[in-house]
Amino acid sequence: MNIGSVLMERKLLMIGNFVLTSGKTSPYYLDLRKLPSYPEFFKIVEEAMERVKDIDYDVILGVATGGVPLASFMACKLGKPMGYVRIEKKGHGTDRLIEAEVSDKKVLVVDDVATTGGSLERASLEVFRNGGRVVGALVIVDREEGAERKLREMGMEFRAIYRISEILRSILDKLSETDRAQILEYMRGNV
Amino acid sequence: MNIGSVLMERKLLMIGNFVLTSGKTSPYYLDLRKLPSYPEFFKIVEEAMERVKDIDYDVILGVATGGVPLASFMACKLGKPMGYVRIEKKGHGTDRLIEAEVSDKKVLVVDDVATTGGSLERASLEVFRNGGRVVGALVIVDREEGAERKLREMGMEFRAIYRISEILRSILDKLSETDRAQILEYMRGNV
Repeated sequence: MNIGSVLMERKLLMIGNFVLTSGKTSPYYLDLRKLPSYPEFFKIVEEAMERVKDIDYDVILGVATGGVPLASFMACKLGKPMGYVRIEKKGHGTDRLIEAEVSDKKVLVVDDVATTGGSLERASLEVFRNGGRVVGALVIVDREEGAERKLREMGMEFRAIYRISEILRSILDKLSETDRAQILEYMRGNV
Repeated sequence: MNIGSVLMERKLLMIGNFVLTSGKTSPYYLDLRKLPSYPEFFKIVEEAMERVKDIDYDVILGVATGGVPLASFMACKLGKPMGYVRIEKKGHGTDRLIEAEVSDKKVLVVDDVATTGGSLERASLEVFRNGGRVVGALVIVDREEGAERKLREMGMEFRAIYRISEILRSILDKLSETDRAQILEYMRGNV
């Protein structure tokens, strides 16, 4: 399975000029939230389990909402308990952020995409506050903007099924010359 | 499995005097968000599939976030595509509410709890707006405050694994006399 082609075909990956929520511009746009509605997702779940099979964990915690389907599928296949963590506070202050039993547990945090690692970091702090310990973080795609270093510095394993540089490299020959030049320039600067 | 005892033991069901977000008071409090972190969840997933096995649907859509684990587990076990729907708009107006391919599809909407059916109704309208059709709604617990009638009137099948009246009845003998009297009075008025 060429994940780059699949993502482009499904319009989950687009090449062009995009302004991100952070204000930064990017020559690609990646949004995996619809991925579980395509059959390729089942293959990705298998890959996900393969990537973390050497990590010893008790509970799988999905980062809401994008990480919850993958966390659930893994829990379903492995027979493990799961739950989710919200990284943004809702209006009412009494709301729990973690919906899972994590006290004294070894937790694997799962999300769809990692960029700087901020969401995974906040999720981990929330687990810690609830008496658990995050032993690893797993994402489908690492956008390679600092998440790996940040999480390793926090003492966690960080695993990505795909790196954005590999994905972009695999679709270069499908792009127009302008797009290809832009992606190559981006990759030189970022990766 | 006595679901009432399980829910009380896990503190997902509590008896007392509770003020709901709507301002109404209730003699019980039910919050199933942590349920997927307990082993009983696997049994509930089996029950869920049993309840809808006569319904013909293509896609499973979880109502975010509480309905997403059950929707995902069912999709995982049945090999069906899934996705989720948010029923509250986030800040930015361009955000999609549905994260799934539902166009021309028969959709099963899944949530953890139904009360008046408002969330399931909004989810269904969103599916309709995206070119799909909701053929059924499935919840773990029906709080029996109007959801069933509302959804049937909309032409959908409505299935609940458990009804709150059954659950409350099954735990009556575990309650203090005051709590039992209060629950019985509530059930006479509501069910």
